Amino acid sequence: MSRWEPNASGRLEQAALDLYRERGFEQTTVAQIAERAGLTERTFFRYFADKREVLFWSQDMLQELAVTTIASQPDRAAPITMVVAAFDAIAATFPQERREFLRQRQAVITASEELQERDSLKLASLASAIAEALRQRGVTDPTAYLIAETGGAVSKVAYIRWISETGPRTLSQILRESFDELKAVLGSWG
Amino acid sequence: MSRWEPNASGRLEQAALDLYRERGFEQTTVAQIAERAGLTERTFFRYFADKREVLFWSQDMLQELAVTTIASQPDRAAPITMVVAAFDAIAATFPQERREFLRQRQAVITASEELQERDSLKLASLASAIAEALRQRGVTDPTAYLIAETGGAVSKVAYIRWISETGPRTLSQILRESFDELKAVLGSWG
Repeated sequence: MSRWEPNASGRLEQAALDLYRERGFEQTTVAQIAERAGLTERTFFRYFADKREVLFWSQDMLQELAVTTIASQPDRAAPITMVVAAFDAIAATFPQERREFLRQRQAVITASEELQERDSLKLASLASAIAEALRQRGVTDPTAYLIAETGGAVSKVAYIRWISETGPRTLSQILRESFDELKAVLGSWG
Repeated sequence: MSRWEPNASGRLEQAALDLYRERGFEQTTVAQIAERAGLTERTFFRYFADKREVLFWSQDMLQELAVTTIASQPDRAAPITMVVAAFDAIAATFPQERREFLRQRQAVITASEELQERDSLKLASLASAIAEALRQRGVTDPTAYLIAETGGAVSKVAYIRWISETGPRTLSQILRESFDELKAVLGSWG
């Protein structure tokens, strides 16, 4: 078997998801995932540190996309506009036809405390990276931290809503609506 | 040694924190924590499932407080007012003299991915419980979920800011300011 495997990450993720659904996350081994994907255990570990990471392999790419998006915003852009643009850039990478897969993935995460923990930490890492990117653009704290964390919360809610729906609305649309709604709710407060 | 120990949770937490700072989280065993606290390992496990939980023992009480606070809000209260009241009730349980301890605790959490994961999950659980309490009060989704998660993000930022400061401002004050700031930032958007 050659060192390079076409779309190995995606194949391993699909195999892992299938096995986690069939047998549960705890009961599945890396050897089983590799076998199901037609790859070796060694290949698995070339891509992922453990059997949790296989469900989060696109995280680094999404984080990089968010950071790059903030770096490329015009100088006159307001900090909140940069944050919305960053989460919207991520949302745009989730096509409608991926939703069923992601719904199954979410059910697997919800069934395992270990996976929930990893999921929560990934979101926290993303928010930290976005806060840091904002600071690079001259946004000071506490604003940078506050709007990055809030953006993370809004995008989490929008994402769960999107995968729960079956209609034609895109994640980008739902994200935008969620920010609009939060603005309205806070506007009526205090 | 009797089954009941005065303030065993607090003593175990202090002992665990001291050892995590001295030796690192990974290198510390439950037996060492119990010994340092002058208690038995069996007592430890009567209170905590594992050596991560010992740093989060007040979580259930805080969650209960948040849920009770929402349940006791007047019927005319706006949903966002209920959420702010819930996080403010939690904030009020953190006195200024506890800040140094919590600063040390936060440094230990930041140094360990396992503890960060548990910390992130605890916050996610709190936000879920608050969303559910809002639904019990008739607040529908996506609003309930959106404002509960946003409240979690704001309270996280306020908490980190509070433990980083040395001045007289209370967590409640900083929390309130953070909501105000988020309102102002979102008001200027879109």
